[in-house]
Amino acid sequence: MLEDSQQSRTKLSELGEFGLIDLLTKNLDSKLPSTIKGIGDDAAVLNFEGKQAILTTDLLVEGVHFDLAYMPLKHLGYKAVMVNLSDVYAMNGVATQITVGIACSNRFPVEALEELYSGIELAAKLYNIDVVGGDTTSSTKGLLISITAIGVADKEDVVYRTGAKPNDLLVVTGDLGAAYMGLQILEREKEVFKVNPNSQPDLDAYTYLIERQLKPEARRDVSGLLKSLEVKPTSMIDISDGLSSEIMHLCKNSKTGVNLFEDKIPLDPSMISVCEEFEIDSTTIALSGGEDYELLFTVSQTDFEKIKANPNFSIIGHMTEENEGMHLITRGNTKIPLIAKGWNAMENDAED
Amino acid sequence: MLEDSQQSRTKLSELGEFGLIDLLTKNLDSKLPSTIKGIGDDAAVLNFEGKQAILTTDLLVEGVHFDLAYMPLKHLGYKAVMVNLSDVYAMNGVATQITVGIACSNRFPVEALEELYSGIELAAKLYNIDVVGGDTTSSTKGLLISITAIGVADKEDVVYRTGAKPNDLLVVTGDLGAAYMGLQILEREKEVFKVNPNSQPDLDAYTYLIERQLKPEARRDVSGLLKSLEVKPTSMIDISDGLSSEIMHLCKNSKTGVNLFEDKIPLDPSMISVCEEFEIDSTTIALSGGEDYELLFTVSQTDFEKIKANPNFSIIGHMTEENEGMHLITRGNTKIPLIAKGWNAMENDAED
Repeated sequence: MLEDSQQSRTKLSELGEFGLIDLLTKNLDSKLPSTIKGIGDDAAVLNFEGKQAILTTDLLVEGVHFDLAYMPLKHLGYKAVMVNLSDVYAMNGVATQITVGIACSNRFPVEALEELYSGIELAAKLYNIDVVGGDTTSSTKGLLISITAIGVADKEDVVYRTGAKPNDLLVVTGDLGAAYMGLQILEREKEVFKVNPNSQPDLDAYTYLIERQLKPEARRDVSGLLKSLEVKPTSMIDISDGLSSEIMHLCKNSKTGVNLFEDKIPLDPSMISVCEEFEIDSTTIALSGGEDYELLFTVSQTDFEKIKANPNFSIIGHMTEENEGMHLITRGNTKIPLIAKGWNAMENDAED
Repeated sequence: MLEDSQQSRTKLSELGEFGLIDLLTKNLDSKLPSTIKGIGDDAAVLNFEGKQAILTTDLLVEGVHFDLAYMPLKHLGYKAVMVNLSDVYAMNGVATQITVGIACSNRFPVEALEELYSGIELAAKLYNIDVVGGDTTSSTKGLLISITAIGVADKEDVVYRTGAKPNDLLVVTGDLGAAYMGLQILEREKEVFKVNPNSQPDLDAYTYLIERQLKPEARRDVSGLLKSLEVKPTSMIDISDGLSSEIMHLCKNSKTGVNLFEDKIPLDPSMISVCEEFEIDSTTIALSGGEDYELLFTVSQTDFEKIKANPNFSIIGHMTEENEGMHLITRGNTKIPLIAKGWNAMENDAED
């Protein structure tokens, strides 16, 4: 369907491990002053000149986090980087370097890994980061990508999950639920394709949703936006597992409760219409869909004027005392407990 | 055979991802002043106070890098940490933090992951490092461990692969080939066990070799030893892929040749006797066995007196001009080209 047909196929074993690493990393020259030594030694050497370093790791596993039937390898490489950068941005840091670990079975030709790396390279270029190391090895089955991202921030700029206070405003960037609905569309087309391999799906109406799933962008801009507004969030987290799950993380870590207003949750019109097409409740998807890679943060009430009119931000609720609990205020003005049905790889897999 | 029988089995799905992370990381309190924030946020926050940071990643894949038939999970966790720390020490750095990524199928109960983590914890304790983050997810098959280690060094202390000069002495720590022969013994016992599950192998004579395979120790001590001798290596690398492969890396990166003397290569007596038992040439194993996690480095000739009598170090050759090539001088005083038959995960797997 959406998968490229691979014209040339070079077996991994023809190159050997070192030949493969040389091939895949040939375009990955280091650019940043903080990268003293990138690829080509036992380890990378970095210099942060008094700033604090931010470190995060994420794994993407074939059959669990992605399906190559509709995920082009280049997009996969790009997305794997975004998933990690999003965590650095959620600390209010600037991402600077990544290492890339890849385990793949011999069913993948060298050209497939080059395609994967081209997505990684594109992400590195657009987000101004250096790829400074990694490990490439074989697996007995499938493809696994493990990326570690490092970033920097001045000590006073780092934002943790722990600083939210009662009455702080709860703010989210972008819109929610689109990545999940993009996945539903891709899954549906995969089933159609199985029945009729000659079908030519018209996915134009779903472009935004599919892009949100296949080629998400991490919110590199938010740190600068907030700085220009002279706002420092009191707490921040990225939305990878769905809005409600992440709100609950902020509440748990900051020891607060929350009131979330259903009518304030930002939804893209195409997401709403596809939810209608699938007969799913759009709020449920926004709350639990996941993979949006937007940022969720809290700010003091005194920053309300600075935030309220900014098109990048939606104020969706406010924090409360911990003993008031975590609630969703529905459009019908009913107060119901907030429930996390986060996208959970472990639970997904338990059905296998 | 050597595998523990698991008494209690809690399904991964019973805990969910966050419950599992809480369980596995409950003992991983951060200890180091450089760890500002460890586990529990989007990313870890580290402070290196003007030192350079050293970053390295390695993957260990079931069926490629280890076999759970004879690798106890606790040892596996320990070894996975050692593999990474060895790379930090090979830069002449002090390892400070790691992140741990684990992908495993549902055939593993929670108790198995706890066992794996107990080995990681033990390594962290003994080597004075903090586990500051990670990712735990499911896989469709098998177990994969991805560790990223970070370390620090003063700028002037970092040792690269690129600094060796003609006439520099080539030095190696410890002894070589034991880890590979330990693996051969474990593989042999596995075959015996398949034929007769009641066999009780007597492995006492092989204790050292098996330990080198199952519970290697990274050379944390070497940096301090060299400092106390007032020796700074001109180049350094860790021996994970076999001596000859690593020597060739040093030569290639430093643009030198080498003369390696067969009779100087340090071998443990038990390694020699097991090579005789298996009718394998011990030099071949020392050159190509791999997984010894010793350090290989070059020093100026002027440091000869400081190094020569130290029981931790063996001078095994010297660097030459690049155009003289890379040679092994045999016990019979014949000069033959050095060949790398490094342990290569890609090549191994190509046979599948």
